[in-house]
Amino acid sequence: MAPLADRILMGPGPSNPYPEATAALVHPVLGHLDPSFLDILDETMERLRRVFKTSNALTLPISGTGSAGMETAFVNVVKPGDPVVIGVNGFFGERMCEIADRLGADVIRVEAPWGEPLDPERLVRAHPSPAVIALVHAETSTGVRNDVAAVGATKGDAILIADTVTSLGGIPVAIDDWGVDISYSATQKCLGAPPGLAPLTASPRARERFVPRPSSWYLDLTLLSKYVEGDGVRRVYHHTAPAAMISAIHAGLGAVLDEGLDAVWERHRECGQLLQAGLEKLGFELFVAAEHRLPELTTVVVPEDLPAGMDEGAVRARLLDHYDIEIGGGVGQLAGRIWRIGCMGHAARPANVHALLGALGEMLGR
Amino acid sequence: MAPLADRILMGPGPSNPYPEATAALVHPVLGHLDPSFLDILDETMERLRRVFKTSNALTLPISGTGSAGMETAFVNVVKPGDPVVIGVNGFFGERMCEIADRLGADVIRVEAPWGEPLDPERLVRAHPSPAVIALVHAETSTGVRNDVAAVGATKGDAILIADTVTSLGGIPVAIDDWGVDISYSATQKCLGAPPGLAPLTASPRARERFVPRPSSWYLDLTLLSKYVEGDGVRRVYHHTAPAAMISAIHAGLGAVLDEGLDAVWERHRECGQLLQAGLEKLGFELFVAAEHRLPELTTVVVPEDLPAGMDEGAVRARLLDHYDIEIGGGVGQLAGRIWRIGCMGHAARPANVHALLGALGEMLGR
Repeated sequence: MAPLADRILMGPGPSNPYPEATAALVHPVLGHLDPSFLDILDETMERLRRVFKTSNALTLPISGTGSAGMETAFVNVVKPGDPVVIGVNGFFGERMCEIADRLGADVIRVEAPWGEPLDPERLVRAHPSPAVIALVHAETSTGVRNDVAAVGATKGDAILIADTVTSLGGIPVAIDDWGVDISYSATQKCLGAPPGLAPLTASPRARERFVPRPSSWYLDLTLLSKYVEGDGVRRVYHHTAPAAMISAIHAGLGAVLDEGLDAVWERHRECGQLLQAGLEKLGFELFVAAEHRLPELTTVVVPEDLPAGMDEGAVRARLLDHYDIEIGGGVGQLAGRIWRIGCMGHAARPANVHALLGALGEMLGR
Repeated sequence: MAPLADRILMGPGPSNPYPEATAALVHPVLGHLDPSFLDILDETMERLRRVFKTSNALTLPISGTGSAGMETAFVNVVKPGDPVVIGVNGFFGERMCEIADRLGADVIRVEAPWGEPLDPERLVRAHPSPAVIALVHAETSTGVRNDVAAVGATKGDAILIADTVTSLGGIPVAIDDWGVDISYSATQKCLGAPPGLAPLTASPRARERFVPRPSSWYLDLTLLSKYVEGDGVRRVYHHTAPAAMISAIHAGLGAVLDEGLDAVWERHRECGQLLQAGLEKLGFELFVAAEHRLPELTTVVVPEDLPAGMDEGAVRARLLDHYDIEIGGGVGQLAGRIWRIGCMGHAARPANVHALLGALGEMLGR
């Protein structure tokens, strides 16, 4: 094999982990019932509560990637035939529909064009008594921020599921204040750890609606709660905890909280602004209107005047090969039409932004 | 928090990872479409084929723990109403029943007492035309080896699922020779990597029977195959690959194959024998008859003459606190009745065996 690459990760995720998270990966592996491991798990759950801004007891890392978090959210509250309203203005809203549909939900799609935000009022009015309303906070496929708080304020009796995969640790998220019942995220975006776990939180209200025996045993939150919370006397083994990754997210969250959530958000905001202003200065068109843009994930329209013989894929390949910088292409209906540039977690640093802007300017003669 | 513990892991898993696997955890994180990452993924898949002894193209690490591997195996081939024959002589056979039942299978249990092996003939004769026959090769809850090859030789038209969580990399496994259609394992037992991934392999015959749209999107092998195998032109993104853990299992498998499968098996055999002979010399009764015992997971009957004031849990707690050695207690109907002692992966070393035997002798005055 060729020597290992070392990249500046400015795609839609993974981002470069915080050094503290990388270092924690090699902590001695501990058993899932070892008191020393349970200390780390308990503190990880407490740190997740602080980052999610929630008092939900059931706040834990799911042993899978962000998409496992999405599946966990739906499989624990959706029964066949349930009316489930889903906001769709990108690839991950579509994925929610796919997952809910496989569970037999009556999926009610509320759409907005890709690149524009969802209308909260249309979401809450789409059905007279939805079991679930679900939307993505930060659409990784388009770079748009959807207004979760406005949906939470008017959700009525529905369970509100919010995907915070690309927002948690990057822009303000406030699960309890916003009235979110279930939210899931991912370790490899703004939380600054490697990919592999899905932080998830579920409100007491959501727990009352958990289906008693979801089709997935692995993602059954009731069983998982008996391990992560215990029953007061002991922890009931469910599956072997992924110790190395839990050490990593424990340390990544520590880095985030040591810096302070306000400071972390401000750093993401500043890097996003630096990047977006720089791209516009180079003559690129940004895909999303300023007021709906994410700082941590910027989408750029692929220009029509690329150098001869170069398509958008060739630009990304050259960035990777020559500059060791990863950015993302478009997905779904935006494949080939946009680039997706992340400034997340430890990658959200001015030096990275300048490295990318310099490379793009050099490559494209701008 | 107290300082981090560092244990000799001789429970039922996790085991101590090979140093190569630990070192690989901190390789730079790479994106899931980075050619440099895909080299590692491809080589991981090839190494898994060598360890599983299979030519199955679809041989991959599932992004979850061993139990996610179990769920993946069933959810991709079981339709509601399917007759599914499951061998049950321990906790993990029970878990198979639970997972299959949630998928709506008509579960036909073929039992043997915990501590004794399954009868292969009863398994293949339990139903005239089962869709699936499933059994656990190495029952982690009892320390018994079941005869997978005998079932594979007479399985008829059924899909054969074999759990090799506690056998792969520890004792001989030969997926193709044995006629196994789907097998899954785990990284943290005899493969010598941290917990977090489930290596899985599926035969072309199994793939022909995949349900077109399983209830789990996350564990849908047809979608996963479009990423890990690609379609000849490109890899279709499914979920973000857990890069650090894939680097770790890549390196762990490298260590296993560098030592050589025959040598690895022999090391596990020798350590198991050393442990079992040592325990008997100390006057302990082994739970499983010699001919059905696993070398990598030994079960010991908790003696009735423990020192005053000490129950079996106190023995394990003292081993952990004072000697930094983890062993496991019994689960299910064996809770409180046995200890489970692993010699797996990098923990399968004579020094560890002597450390444990010495500690037990000292503690229990034997």
